[in-house]
Amino acid sequence: MDFNYSIWLVIGIVGGVLSLGVAIFLYFWVMKQDPGTKAAQEVAGWIREGAAAYLKRLYAALTTLALIISVLIGIVFSLEKGVLGAESGSTSFLPFGVVMALAFITGSLCSAVAGFMGMRVAVEANVRTATAAGKDLAGAFKLSFYAGAVLGLAMVGLAVIGMSVIYMLTHNAQAVLGFSFGASTLALLAKAGGGIYTKTADIAADLVGKVEIGIPEDDPRNPAVVADNVGDNVGDVAGMGADIFDSYVASVVAVMLLGATFGLKERLDPTLYTILPLIICSLGILASLLGIQFVRVKEGGKPGAALNRGTIITCVIFIVMLFGLKLAFPIINTGVVWAAIAGIVVGVIIGFTSDYFTNDSFAPVKETSRVSTSGSAITIITGFSYGLISIIPSVIGIVTATLTAYYIAEANGLPGIYGIGIAAVGMLAISGMIVSADAYGPIVDNARGIAEMAGMGQEVIDRADVLDAAGNTAKAITKGFSISAAALTVLALFAAFSEVMAAHGVNITISLRSPIVVAGVFLGAITPPLFSALTMLAVTNNAFDMIEEIRRQFHAEPGILAGTHKPDYARCVSLAAHGALNSLAIPAFLAVGLPLVVGFVLGPDALGGFLGGAIFTGVIFALLMSNAGGLWDNAKKYIETGKFGGPGSEAHKAAVVGDTVGDPFKDTAGPSLNTLITVMSLVSSLFAPIIAAFHLFS
Amino acid sequence: MDFNYSIWLVIGIVGGVLSLGVAIFLYFWVMKQDPGTKAAQEVAGWIREGAAAYLKRLYAALTTLALIISVLIGIVFSLEKGVLGAESGSTSFLPFGVVMALAFITGSLCSAVAGFMGMRVAVEANVRTATAAGKDLAGAFKLSFYAGAVLGLAMVGLAVIGMSVIYMLTHNAQAVLGFSFGASTLALLAKAGGGIYTKTADIAADLVGKVEIGIPEDDPRNPAVVADNVGDNVGDVAGMGADIFDSYVASVVAVMLLGATFGLKERLDPTLYTILPLIICSLGILASLLGIQFVRVKEGGKPGAALNRGTIITCVIFIVMLFGLKLAFPIINTGVVWAAIAGIVVGVIIGFTSDYFTNDSFAPVKETSRVSTSGSAITIITGFSYGLISIIPSVIGIVTATLTAYYIAEANGLPGIYGIGIAAVGMLAISGMIVSADAYGPIVDNARGIAEMAGMGQEVIDRADVLDAAGNTAKAITKGFSISAAALTVLALFAAFSEVMAAHGVNITISLRSPIVVAGVFLGAITPPLFSALTMLAVTNNAFDMIEEIRRQFHAEPGILAGTHKPDYARCVSLAAHGALNSLAIPAFLAVGLPLVVGFVLGPDALGGFLGGAIFTGVIFALLMSNAGGLWDNAKKYIETGKFGGPGSEAHKAAVVGDTVGDPFKDTAGPSLNTLITVMSLVSSLFAPIIAAFHLFS
Repeated sequence: MDFNYSIWLVIGIVGGVLSLGVAIFLYFWVMKQDPGTKAAQEVAGWIREGAAAYLKRLYAALTTLALIISVLIGIVFSLEKGVLGAESGSTSFLPFGVVMALAFITGSLCSAVAGFMGMRVAVEANVRTATAAGKDLAGAFKLSFYAGAVLGLAMVGLAVIGMSVIYMLTHNAQAVLGFSFGASTLALLAKAGGGIYTKTADIAADLVGKVEIGIPEDDPRNPAVVADNVGDNVGDVAGMGADIFDSYVASVVAVMLLGATFGLKERLDPTLYTILPLIICSLGILASLLGIQFVRVKEGGKPGAALNRGTIITCVIFIVMLFGLKLAFPIINTGVVWAAIAGIVVGVIIGFTSDYFTNDSFAPVKETSRVSTSGSAITIITGFSYGLISIIPSVIGIVTATLTAYYIAEANGLPGIYGIGIAAVGMLAISGMIVSADAYGPIVDNARGIAEMAGMGQEVIDRADVLDAAGNTAKAITKGFSISAAALTVLALFAAFSEVMAAHGVNITISLRSPIVVAGVFLGAITPPLFSALTMLAVTNNAFDMIEEIRRQFHAEPGILAGTHKPDYARCVSLAAHGALNSLAIPAFLAVGLPLVVGFVLGPDALGGFLGGAIFTGVIFALLMSNAGGLWDNAKKYIETGKFGGPGSEAHKAAVVGDTVGDPFKDTAGPSLNTLITVMSLVSSLFAPIIAAFHLFS
Repeated sequence: MDFNYSIWLVIGIVGGVLSLGVAIFLYFWVMKQDPGTKAAQEVAGWIREGAAAYLKRLYAALTTLALIISVLIGIVFSLEKGVLGAESGSTSFLPFGVVMALAFITGSLCSAVAGFMGMRVAVEANVRTATAAGKDLAGAFKLSFYAGAVLGLAMVGLAVIGMSVIYMLTHNAQAVLGFSFGASTLALLAKAGGGIYTKTADIAADLVGKVEIGIPEDDPRNPAVVADNVGDNVGDVAGMGADIFDSYVASVVAVMLLGATFGLKERLDPTLYTILPLIICSLGILASLLGIQFVRVKEGGKPGAALNRGTIITCVIFIVMLFGLKLAFPIINTGVVWAAIAGIVVGVIIGFTSDYFTNDSFAPVKETSRVSTSGSAITIITGFSYGLISIIPSVIGIVTATLTAYYIAEANGLPGIYGIGIAAVGMLAISGMIVSADAYGPIVDNARGIAEMAGMGQEVIDRADVLDAAGNTAKAITKGFSISAAALTVLALFAAFSEVMAAHGVNITISLRSPIVVAGVFLGAITPPLFSALTMLAVTNNAFDMIEEIRRQFHAEPGILAGTHKPDYARCVSLAAHGALNSLAIPAFLAVGLPLVVGFVLGPDALGGFLGGAIFTGVIFALLMSNAGGLWDNAKKYIETGKFGGPGSEAHKAAVVGDTVGDPFKDTAGPSLNTLITVMSLVSSLFAPIIAAFHLFS
């Protein structure tokens, strides 16, 4: 069978367009649903306005940053020709610097648009879900899940369209790298900023409202309640979408770079192996679109089971499609199929394993709940310790997937490292389904908040609680999945970095026997902890300010607590936004600037060590913080079901402390680390040709 | 000037004997001091008995383990000839397996004897310090510091004697490695066991006594109060002594191994460069003996300043002596002198830098105290974040010391890695002084406890408080110092491991471009977090049991709380001992067994990666946990001085939670990690010849 690669690229674009089309269709479907009572709409309006105000400020700040970086890229790459184009003579008529700058901007834009779409639909879907929950569970579930799917499908659609078009126009994997760098830089700031925003509001609202004053969660008398609900949207919906979006794109780019370089070197067909990840993603989109059909629930049914069923069915369809691909096009190496399957299988296993540490059916949550009877310090130590242990199975899973994919590829005559990249792509190909299930969580969480704030009755709140519990399980699985996918992705990028260096005449070994490499690893290894610390301190500092503001409002206007006077929600919203955006400068420098400093000063080998160090501790701290945070959250919820004294007991108070500590762990610092190490790897690969040419030490 | 190396070895032994002699002299001097009132002696008697009972059980368990390991070593090394002897024809008349087994046992014994001496003198010195504090500050300070010096000087004396004698008898650096492995294995278990013991008792005593019942710290009505005081001795005195002892020996051994192998390869004088670290240690001992003379304080003076003065003066004397050595023996390479100075300077700088994060004169403690007004969750997040940031300066210090020592050595024609080893030895050479200052801390802490329990009056307690505050500063500095010294030591050992492998025909690159190395690094990197989690969970589990026991005693006999009935101290002592010893099996396996499993299964290159990974996260977690713990401790004390509401305020309650979380961080998990990575490095180097010959994968 003969190959026409342009047709393959068109297939990629068609898959992307299909995905985006379904997303747009679902968006309008969601908007057509009953927006509910006037009270509910008013509450939803506050949240929508708060979210819009934050996004406006965020995107304004990011536009400036993106323009600065793109000009920088434009200048730097005007000195560079981009030697990694797979097909000679096919370079663009534009100067290469301009191409790279445009690719970077397009990547940022796609990421922003996907996040914005997800946000838009989420703030509309929450009130509609609350309204639908007034009728039945099935309808409310369908609405919220389809709203989540808008984010999931828009994201993968835009990613595949963007990458395919850029590769089609430039035939140059490095230009796609620019796209990926743009997407990841935006994702990092959206994720970190959103994470700081959401936890600032959440902690401040809880500490004054629940702890000091004793009013319930989501009580409309709390001045921070709107900020808290806005936070769920900007942190969880936009943030998590951006998080997986960037791994998704980065994994494809890593494989494209490896395909281009290895292909040239090892006499494989470079174009085939460069385009292949796009085709795999297209299959993953089709599998997700089919799998989504199976996510349904009846009244009294289990939404969590429905979500998991959707994930499993999507995986099975995807695996069948991979075999189909091999049968249809025997030219594709069998190693590719098996490596992709290794990735997807390990990804799902890790996802479900991390559920063990955060699900109240198992020992860690139960044990942490039990010891909470001895006070909050013991809760913290125990939960933190289980968080440390939770690193083990995921890391063993990552190591297993890496080695399996490597040796499968080698056994089939492919470069082993290409197999690792394919495993990452295989894991992430079903992101459409994974993100849909994940984005569902904050939507139903918000629906519950609106039901409470708008006084929609206990039945609605109860149904929203059932939906919410499923969201938490989906979230735990997605987190394990996304961290391991990011780990494989950065390992593939790490390999791509070395290859790009080699292509530019600098052969690095990154040997731990070299002291400069060890120095690099140490410096890289301390970056994720530092990044975590800065984002968490931003949360506590901002929360401290907001706590003062909430207290001030209660003090200045006693009518607020009496329920006769509306609090000044907008002030808290503005405080949270201001604080979050002001806290991003140093974290942004750590991600983008530090690798360049290390590279230009200590040289390529040290930069390799630096990336390695950042990957090791980045993965470890991401797992620790996400899992410990999830564990504390669920230990609190477990006690709230009446165990160990139930709500209001000493154990409950201790568990609330654990939950509050876990908040910035799991929703601010932890999930940003994935993106941090991705951005660091991308910027290193992107600037590798320049660093190869200029560096102080070797 | 001609060289006779035996004379050099004799000089080493003389330095050791001198040190040990002074230690014994001080021991008897301490014993001659006034043991105080009958009430005080009774209280001291309980502590002494509790400590003796624990040590008996600990050493019984360790003897069994040491015998098993030594038999194993004996068998394995009977297959091995020990090719690293620097002088041919000088091997012992005993089979090499027997030599190694004996070296291992001797190392364990020396470590045990040093710890035991320190403990013995500590439990006698605490009551005498309390009694002396009834008269004046100067006398009490002198007594407690000299008691601390017994541990410091006995430790370095025994280490130098042991290593010199073994090298003199065998002329084989590998035999000294066996000695070091014995010392470190014992140190690890003493440290981890002591750390679990002390924090079990401390947390349980505080949570029931201070928090639930509301009786003061060290109140004799608390059934866990004796266990708590015993814990200070077994955890801090014996534990910290063992901790630095093992780094001290390991740094010397690393350099001896490097001296032997590099010497052979690079045509340097192998014997000179093998013996050199012993000579440097001997100079360090002399400098410490002189420096100790300057540690004096007058009534109303500052004990902390006196301790720091002693450290600085010791450093200066030591540096002068190094130049003197070079002048007297020009054959010694100038690079050695400068590398040693680089080590000592950076060590002291790191020590004082880590003081920044735990001293209440600076922002981290002040800020954590301030935010404590918003509740314990914010205290935890803030302190933890500063703990993460505190990693940065120390790691940059370690990296600077490493690179400086490396390039200084290279510039002077020595192998760079030898310079790194010498920097570690330079840092640790003044351990006699450092450990003396550190062991002083728990002695005065205990003296304060005895003064309280025996009702010795407020004046005594106040003086003891002044002494205690100085102990905390000394402790912070020592911790920063010991972690960075351990880091340099394991980096030197890491290099020695590669050299030993190379000497046995296996050249490893430990390149991060190899997936099996990356797998090794990941597996190594998760070991320190797992080890920390297991030891901390041991603390919470045991504390939970002890809390039940304390509550049971209060409930069963109301006379205890009324002060008319003596609680059953022995039961709590026994619970703590039992719990601690039972929790050591898996941590011991992680340290000794896991490197062997990785080596024999995944091969030498993966084992290199494994060691590297363990070193990176080991250093990072050790710094994080030690500094965060110290910070929380001092934030609590800062609030107790009346800041932010003072004792009993909400801020104070929050800070107490922080302090309790910090307890196992800083006294159980954190400090054991040094020893863990040392043991892992030693066992890898020791078994390197065997692993080189047999392994599954390559």
